[in-house]
Amino acid sequence: MSETEISTLGEFGLIDHLTKDLKNVNPSTLKGVGDDAAVLNYGDKQTLVTTDLLLEGIHFNLNYVALKHLGYKAAVVNFSDIYAMNGTPKQITVSLGISKRFTVEHIEELFSGIRAACEIYGVDIVGGDTSASVTGLIISITCIGEAQKDKIVYRNGAKNTDLICVSGDLGAAYMGLQLLERESRVAKEVKGFTPDFSGKEYILERQLKPEARRDIIEFLDDEGIVPTSMMDISDGLSSELIHICKQSNVGCRIYEERIPIDYQTAVMAEEFNMNLTTVALNGGEDYELLFTIPLTMHDRVNNLDNIKVIGHITAPELGYALITRDDTELELKAQGWNPLKD
Amino acid sequence: MSETEISTLGEFGLIDHLTKDLKNVNPSTLKGVGDDAAVLNYGDKQTLVTTDLLLEGIHFNLNYVALKHLGYKAAVVNFSDIYAMNGTPKQITVSLGISKRFTVEHIEELFSGIRAACEIYGVDIVGGDTSASVTGLIISITCIGEAQKDKIVYRNGAKNTDLICVSGDLGAAYMGLQLLERESRVAKEVKGFTPDFSGKEYILERQLKPEARRDIIEFLDDEGIVPTSMMDISDGLSSELIHICKQSNVGCRIYEERIPIDYQTAVMAEEFNMNLTTVALNGGEDYELLFTIPLTMHDRVNNLDNIKVIGHITAPELGYALITRDDTELELKAQGWNPLKD
Repeated sequence: MSETEISTLGEFGLIDHLTKDLKNVNPSTLKGVGDDAAVLNYGDKQTLVTTDLLLEGIHFNLNYVALKHLGYKAAVVNFSDIYAMNGTPKQITVSLGISKRFTVEHIEELFSGIRAACEIYGVDIVGGDTSASVTGLIISITCIGEAQKDKIVYRNGAKNTDLICVSGDLGAAYMGLQLLERESRVAKEVKGFTPDFSGKEYILERQLKPEARRDIIEFLDDEGIVPTSMMDISDGLSSELIHICKQSNVGCRIYEERIPIDYQTAVMAEEFNMNLTTVALNGGEDYELLFTIPLTMHDRVNNLDNIKVIGHITAPELGYALITRDDTELELKAQGWNPLKD
Repeated sequence: MSETEISTLGEFGLIDHLTKDLKNVNPSTLKGVGDDAAVLNYGDKQTLVTTDLLLEGIHFNLNYVALKHLGYKAAVVNFSDIYAMNGTPKQITVSLGISKRFTVEHIEELFSGIRAACEIYGVDIVGGDTSASVTGLIISITCIGEAQKDKIVYRNGAKNTDLICVSGDLGAAYMGLQLLERESRVAKEVKGFTPDFSGKEYILERQLKPEARRDIIEFLDDEGIVPTSMMDISDGLSSELIHICKQSNVGCRIYEERIPIDYQTAVMAEEFNMNLTTVALNGGEDYELLFTIPLTMHDRVNNLDNIKVIGHITAPELGYALITRDDTELELKAQGWNPLKD
């Protein structure tokens, strides 16, 4: 990789360089990069906006995360928030803070990942900001999406007896992170160490290159199912489910045996001597969808591969309950990943 | 000021704490803070989006900038970008990266400045993200605005013979910054030093608490004037005017004697032994509006206090010219503030 100091291009040069061959794909994108603001047109649809800030040393570690994957993930986690409203992501703005150790080629790598995600999900890059940073890399992405007025799904619509559903499986991204951190520590201590990741590809991909569940949103739309509440699982199932319950003023009852977990996740949790259910409940970064649907729709989601009914909504006074495999009732607690704690 | 460690609240606690009594004022804000995304409705208007990333040690120095002013400015610079499209800011998202030396009270101060700006300009805070940061404070704001389809003003519409107009005066924010930096250096070296800012209030306010020129946008609207091109001046007049000329494929000719400069700016430039015209052309952070209007509108802007005609657009082959007081023609160069250079 050749190395071009970013200061040789300057801010405007860098922006031009990164955006010169961007092509917009969405009719709602009237004007993208290159003016004081992007211009969007949503006609009679409603506009969704979400934003995420990712900081080096807090949210990612470049010792084991490739810049291209990082860019991909930074974009996808925003798309996931728009899908979690039952909407479709359409545009993003990308702001970067860049310290001196990064070259133009580094930022191209990062940006190529963002662009790859945008191409796959049909999203336009319409603006942003770049700046020097004193330490490390800063990525702030804002995503704008659209939705039909009567199909937007909030967190506060869950009703007593609704079914609680989860897409995909949980805990894999967290175990992928544990594995990467362990191998990174060993690599520092043991000269010439090469990690062997065979048989662990799935949990690594879940951590390094997660996808947003557009397929689930499309499936629900095809089936005419509008969930009563929905969130994406970024901070762990427990934390997100409690958000939905609090905002909907309801309780919940979920069953340990129904929580979807991949085989690789289970193997890795055992290797790390971690409680698998704790991993699945609190791991975070799954970017699966957690949603509730009326009980009457049970048959329409019961035999699907990628949606699992894990429990049901209850009256608020019943609290947040986890029913274990041995039929013990435990209180569900939000132990989600907290980036403001140590 | 009492001191509450941010970790005692956690991320969600901090967000709740900061946003619990937010009230939305715009009908287009259907759902603000508290879900995966905000929901906006722009009906048949068009949506504008802009974003800015502000980093401690690069864009601001907390030795001499109060957190409340910083919050105010961080919001206003985004509003300025929306006005520069001839639009109206309506919503913002606010993402914060916060290092350990900041307490809850610090972030309240910062947020109170953001809220003050939003109240004055009629803007809703609809979302955001908070995170720990390894070093320093990070502020990323995205602003969404609306505009009438046929009134949006881009950078690429300037035509030969158009008049070049500037609101307010230039260079004051830059001289305010020079003054603050000098006094901050002296304060470090001289024990018990108290800076005397009397007679310098204007340039300090321009640096610390700039305003966006909503009044100019409203005036133009009242007068039925739609500029052919427009930008806000954040990186210096030269740099911005060249942006407009390049995107419009035209040249320009501006007159040194017409560049609006405040008395305090002139006094301070002399004190610092700086060339006043260079300061006004390249100083940056003025947040005034630079715009072009057809020559036929000359009489409608000629005798205004807060709009100055500083020159005119030419054919592209005539380049970018500054006519000095002694009638010499110099080439205008973009020496604007470059946050990617040392």
